[in-house]
Amino acid sequence: MKATLDHIGIAVRDLDAALAFYRDALGLDVGEAEDVPSERVRAQFLPLGETALELLEATDEGSAIARSIERRGPGIHHITLRVADLAAALARLRERGVRLVDERPRPGAGGSRVAFIHPSAAQGVLIELKEDPGR
Amino acid sequence: MKATLDHIGIAVRDLDAALAFYRDALGLDVGEAEDVPSERVRAQFLPLGETALELLEATDEGSAIARSIERRGPGIHHITLRVADLAAALARLRERGVRLVDERPRPGAGGSRVAFIHPSAAQGVLIELKEDPGR
Repeated sequence: MKATLDHIGIAVRDLDAALAFYRDALGLDVGEAEDVPSERVRAQFLPLGETALELLEATDEGSAIARSIERRGPGIHHITLRVADLAAALARLRERGVRLVDERPRPGAGGSRVAFIHPSAAQGVLIELKEDPGR
Repeated sequence: MKATLDHIGIAVRDLDAALAFYRDALGLDVGEAEDVPSERVRAQFLPLGETALELLEATDEGSAIARSIERRGPGIHHITLRVADLAAALARLRERGVRLVDERPRPGAGGSRVAFIHPSAAQGVLIELKEDPGR
């Protein structure tokens, strides 16, 4: 399966504190910010060549990002791979007995369709697959 | 600071089991493998556009990767950013009071020079900076 790395999602407690390191100290460029109400997060992208870091601050204590920080502290939450045909990718993984969080594509940010693979199948890594018609 | 993502390092218990997912089920291409005696790991690269995943299996139970798996289980261990001038990057970070693991560049794989930033400075993410004369 042809895939590229769309972004690395990093769960942070405080977006301003995170930007003080990633933008001000490390000196990375800052891209777009986006509120994602469905995930109850605010996302700040930092472009990094053809990929990006995505800093994620929870906007609600019940969100997946807030719960992840509660359990494991801040840090890398997921990586997102861009694929050409998400339904075909999921069919291939199901055929091989891979445990999925999402059996079918669901709506993601910016008109994309996404699905998560369960971390138990991927050596502890939470992998999001993304089909993005705009790219 | 201009940076690109060199790779994402993933600590795995068993390289063969990891390849059964990342290569066989997910279908990613497989690149070079490398024994890194100084880190006591075997590394297997999976190219992903201009970046890569690096699966890391410990070859010694005292290695950093073995200890990380013992503490936190398998999963993403570090991300590596490629920079043009590592000494300048470290000077910039020191000036801003960022906690470093390596105050000075040290030899990395394949003739590169590397240094780690402490995860407490980077929202829980272990960041390796790499200056690679061959790229």
